[in-house]
Amino acid sequence: MTVDDLLFPAEARTRAIARELYTHARNLPLISPHGHVDPGILADDAPFPDPARLIVVPDHYVTRMLLSQGIPPSELGVPRIDGGESETDPRLIWRRLAENWHLFRGTPSRLWLEQTFRTVFGIETPFNGQTADRVYDELAAKLAEPQYRPRALFQRFNLEVLATTESPLDDLSRHAKLAADGWGGPGGRVITTFRPDDLVDMDWPGWPDRVVKLGEITGQDTATYEGFLHALAQRRRDFIAAGATCSDHGHPTAATGGMTAAEAKSLFERVVHGGATAAEAEAFRAHMLMEFARMSLDDGLVMQLHPGSSRNHNATLFRTHGRDVGGDIPVATEYTNALRPLLEEFGHDPRFRVVVYTLDEYTFSRELAPLAGGYPAMFIGAPWWFLDAPEALRRWREAVTETAGFYNTAGFVDDTRAYCSIPVRHDVARRVDAGFLARLVAEHRLGLDEAAETIADLAYHLPKKIFRVG
Amino acid sequence: MTVDDLLFPAEARTRAIARELYTHARNLPLISPHGHVDPGILADDAPFPDPARLIVVPDHYVTRMLLSQGIPPSELGVPRIDGGESETDPRLIWRRLAENWHLFRGTPSRLWLEQTFRTVFGIETPFNGQTADRVYDELAAKLAEPQYRPRALFQRFNLEVLATTESPLDDLSRHAKLAADGWGGPGGRVITTFRPDDLVDMDWPGWPDRVVKLGEITGQDTATYEGFLHALAQRRRDFIAAGATCSDHGHPTAATGGMTAAEAKSLFERVVHGGATAAEAEAFRAHMLMEFARMSLDDGLVMQLHPGSSRNHNATLFRTHGRDVGGDIPVATEYTNALRPLLEEFGHDPRFRVVVYTLDEYTFSRELAPLAGGYPAMFIGAPWWFLDAPEALRRWREAVTETAGFYNTAGFVDDTRAYCSIPVRHDVARRVDAGFLARLVAEHRLGLDEAAETIADLAYHLPKKIFRVG
Amino acid sequence: MTVDDLLFPAEARTRAIARELYTHARNLPLISPHGHVDPGILADDAPFPDPARLIVVPDHYVTRMLLSQGIPPSELGVPRIDGGESETDPRLIWRRLAENWHLFRGTPSRLWLEQTFRTVFGIETPFNGQTADRVYDELAAKLAEPQYRPRALFQRFNLEVLATTESPLDDLSRHAKLAADGWGGPGGRVITTFRPDDLVDMDWPGWPDRVVKLGEITGQDTATYEGFLHALAQRRRDFIAAGATCSDHGHPTAATGGMTAAEAKSLFERVVHGGATAAEAEAFRAHMLMEFARMSLDDGLVMQLHPGSSRNHNATLFRTHGRDVGGDIPVATEYTNALRPLLEEFGHDPRFRVVVYTLDEYTFSRELAPLAGGYPAMFIGAPWWFLDAPEALRRWREAVTETAGFYNTAGFVDDTRAYCSIPVRHDVARRVDAGFLARLVAEHRLGLDEAAETIADLAYHLPKKIFRVG
Repeated sequence: MTVDDLLFPAEARTRAIARELYTHARNLPLISPHGHVDPGILADDAPFPDPARLIVVPDHYVTRMLLSQGIPPSELGVPRIDGGESETDPRLIWRRLAENWHLFRGTPSRLWLEQTFRTVFGIETPFNGQTADRVYDELAAKLAEPQYRPRALFQRFNLEVLATTESPLDDLSRHAKLAADGWGGPGGRVITTFRPDDLVDMDWPGWPDRVVKLGEITGQDTATYEGFLHALAQRRRDFIAAGATCSDHGHPTAATGGMTAAEAKSLFERVVHGGATAAEAEAFRAHMLMEFARMSLDDGLVMQLHPGSSRNHNATLFRTHGRDVGGDIPVATEYTNALRPLLEEFGHDPRFRVVVYTLDEYTFSRELAPLAGGYPAMFIGAPWWFLDAPEALRRWREAVTETAGFYNTAGFVDDTRAYCSIPVRHDVARRVDAGFLARLVAEHRLGLDEAAETIADLAYHLPKKIFRVG
Repeated sequence: MTVDDLLFPAEARTRAIARELYTHARNLPLISPHGHVDPGILADDAPFPDPARLIVVPDHYVTRMLLSQGIPPSELGVPRIDGGESETDPRLIWRRLAENWHLFRGTPSRLWLEQTFRTVFGIETPFNGQTADRVYDELAAKLAEPQYRPRALFQRFNLEVLATTESPLDDLSRHAKLAADGWGGPGGRVITTFRPDDLVDMDWPGWPDRVVKLGEITGQDTATYEGFLHALAQRRRDFIAAGATCSDHGHPTAATGGMTAAEAKSLFERVVHGGATAAEAEAFRAHMLMEFARMSLDDGLVMQLHPGSSRNHNATLFRTHGRDVGGDIPVATEYTNALRPLLEEFGHDPRFRVVVYTLDEYTFSRELAPLAGGYPAMFIGAPWWFLDAPEALRRWREAVTETAGFYNTAGFVDDTRAYCSIPVRHDVARRVDAGFLARLVAEHRLGLDEAAETIADLAYHLPKKIFRVG
Repeated sequence: MTVDDLLFPAEARTRAIARELYTHARNLPLISPHGHVDPGILADDAPFPDPARLIVVPDHYVTRMLLSQGIPPSELGVPRIDGGESETDPRLIWRRLAENWHLFRGTPSRLWLEQTFRTVFGIETPFNGQTADRVYDELAAKLAEPQYRPRALFQRFNLEVLATTESPLDDLSRHAKLAADGWGGPGGRVITTFRPDDLVDMDWPGWPDRVVKLGEITGQDTATYEGFLHALAQRRRDFIAAGATCSDHGHPTAATGGMTAAEAKSLFERVVHGGATAAEAEAFRAHMLMEFARMSLDDGLVMQLHPGSSRNHNATLFRTHGRDVGGDIPVATEYTNALRPLLEEFGHDPRFRVVVYTLDEYTFSRELAPLAGGYPAMFIGAPWWFLDAPEALRRWREAVTETAGFYNTAGFVDDTRAYCSIPVRHDVARRVDAGFLARLVAEHRLGLDEAAETIADLAYHLPKKIFRVG
């Protein structure tokens, strides 16, 4: 058997069907329309650093699990912002992971890393405290070889398109380099995504300065509301020139609407130099989603919305290491009322499209599937962060398919900074879908031919269409 | 094998047990105590119209899925209320469904329709874009035959009792016709259900006029609170004479209680000609559930409560096509505090019975099972609308059986307007219960004899007893 | 086969792995760090009473299910507080259970009781209405034998440590007796747990008197806030001398923090003689969790928090039978914001540890796993009350393992007053974990050796370490 049975249901009949279905998806190119890979990796195509800096330091899934058992991020090399010291010896960092590898049993991190070692790097040595150095050395040796450079891997991964995510303040120079090399730009292999949270979120420290900077970049008077909107629209055009097909919005809630343009103007111009209350910041975020939807009617960017994270919940971590290092915790999220203004105004417009994600699986059947199954513009994004496990992917399909079917779901997104794990993550999703569809076939609910067509659509054709890539 | 394995678990041992258990349920008569079939269908016993008008036009599960992919209801023949045109060619409508049949993979609509074609109409042609006309013709030919008239089907379906749902303003003439023909009235085959939402819901446009009309029908002075209550009690007696054993209440929330009779009187008489606020409307609905519970102590109607739908969420759809065409979306629903006044006052009274449904599965183990497993008067209604899939039925049993057992659940309800799908829907529920019970047997938690008794109770004996029918 | 297949997955390959894994856990000693057994049972070591008073009367799982079908607790011998009569004939009580045994199909009570009969008492007679008297007689005969006395059973159960739960007002005399007999005290077989709810909960009738009594017991001036805190700290030391390693806190919500010490002092001294509002009581509970966490830095007690029960929801039951007889119902519970103050102040302190339970499974993946997987001090408690079924245990592992792994879960707790069912409950948890781990092995996600190590950790080593027992 060249195709092993990882993740397939144990029951023999279902497993055989899953194997068969998987053959229809496994070799399809990867579409990665939503992620956080540093575009510089591909622009520079430099060799990756040591195993610890590749695998441990930047992966907050890994560092937060170790933190939860008392190993602080500073012992894992995560940079500090408070002047404190952080471990610099990559081999020591690596050993700390290996010695605590049992903590990851049953987690997606374990699955991804083991499969990355095995399928990306060809390392068959089992990973644990005893083999830490050996795996480190094997990995380091591979990383020094030219076929493990980022662009070589891109081709080996069978990646068709990879979207990174940038702020409107980003100069897009790395994407310009990629375009110059024939890798980027509209229709290119590496594209950007327009993520304006840091300009929309009045609560985020430094907001007034960033609005000023946006004005400098665009030549607009961003002290006025009209200038601010024009500047954002202009940056969207710049991003589209760098290949963007989507915008991305990470808000605390899914709230949309609620303000007239006049109210928004009045609020913005009153607080553009600072001083917005939390309620004003929330109202402005909700309003700006309406404005971005309106812009998308003209420029065609697909909106992605992922609400529901309480950012920087872990204040200790925030103080010592800053943002995005594993200190965010989900909260209950409401969609039915929150999205109503957006869907009322744009939900039937064929030019508009919104892909909605969640950290709160307890909305799958109650809100997300009914909304996506009832409005032409809305699609359900793949489960994401804290919902990455095969079990979560299964629960998602089981909960949303009833009301949204397969064709109102947007296809898998890896949402990762961990470049080398991308093919593994997509493979996990394809295997889980194979198992899910195999059960429908085994229960006589779907023909094998239909299931085969469906898995290919989920893996490749749907995300390509929905995210307007390729 | 005459019994096929549709929906049974794939694992051989469990499947064999499921098959065996299913034989104890499959031939039991159908009890349909909660549904929305037009009683005129059975009163008139006229042939059904063309396939499109039978299958597509009235089924908002079908039309909303097509809408979600950009095919508006007007292209599917759904009547417009805004003066716009709607497709009238049934064959065109039918083809639009067939060409988009892949959208329904994995959904209950797909399951129901395919099984309806096969088991009700004996059509073995696979349904898809290529076969659309052929299936249409086969179906149209069957519909012209006398054995496909509604009453003939009723008997073939092995229906023992079917409850329809009417407003207190309905003249019940169709039920009178059924009674005159020996089909209706108390203990009859087709009975009504008392659904007073349009008279209780001050928010519903036209409420004052309907209160006046209620007065005209009953000869009560419904401008007074006492007259209003008397009129409703009188209509309940009329409904009971037309066979009703249940009332049915679809409220935005599960709120009950909260007002004294004096407060209710004062509110009612102040706003009976219009002008209630949203908060007043909500308070009045909560109060009226107490009043209906009180009436049921005398007249014995079983109360059914299904909260949690945000009605007419899709404003575009509401504007073009009106109510009940797929534009409702669920919201999170609270039961523990909401039902406390009702259960405190009536929850131990053997004359009172309330069957509580939900659109929010994320209350199954936390609220519904503990309440039904702790109060004599309360039973959990079958999962419903947006929770119709075999997966949802399984999740329901897995979540509520622990605390409520099997005997505090009220049995399957089809809740449908789609008359021809009724036997299929019940069959799906029986198959899912067979699979669920088979697992308990396979895990050595239940004897086969007990499981066989249980499946017969769930399919037939329990709903008959709990809904007081037959 | 000496090991039967109860609860193992039906699929043959997975079942074989589950059997193998179970052998690594089945004979490990039982750690019972959280329960409600009356310590007098073990202090006195008297024979148990008749079967009804052992099995039916004190078990509100059993009496609430019978109540839900119209059999009031007074017919089952549950003592009344309203002067009414209660059944006194144990054989009649027993028959009422047996005749309604079908109500318990699929419930954990059924599983526990049948396994208790079979494995603890060696009774193979199937239990039902026909065999009621025979099982009663067999059970009564066993109960008269010396090897069925509590201490003999303790050793046969292979219990290593059993924690009971007492109020700070308890004189701990039964634990003193146990210590004198070589059974109790620090490191002993039977230990206590510090549960101060009745002194913290200003809402609980009689609170001012209990605060006075606390002052009498400790010699502190509990009319002052400082005296109150000193008195509680002193009782914690007394409890530790009686073997306690944990405190236990059952609050309506998970709220923590929110008050300064000065505010707490001011509130406490204003209402110490009565008159706190509901909001004040809630604020004080939230504050006191911070104080108890602070005390634990010094004295090492592990904090257990189980919020989310609406106590005495069933007012009729409360009026007739008082507290803790099955009248509580869960409510939705929020953790992310509620626990933030506690985790911000103590969540990284290696001296602090909090085990958080829930009645609301719809927080598993969204809040509990992310919190426990992100803070060193927090662990997730086993599913509990209303979430005792094998299905609930499986859902729990499926939902939390992704983000918290196995090693941020605290191990099974039986949480029971039903002494004779303790080994059965632990056995159920071990079997479910065997099945869960077997699936991971069958899906090629975990090695058999790792799974074997994990099940032993979950069953024995983890709870021992986390609850600081043994």
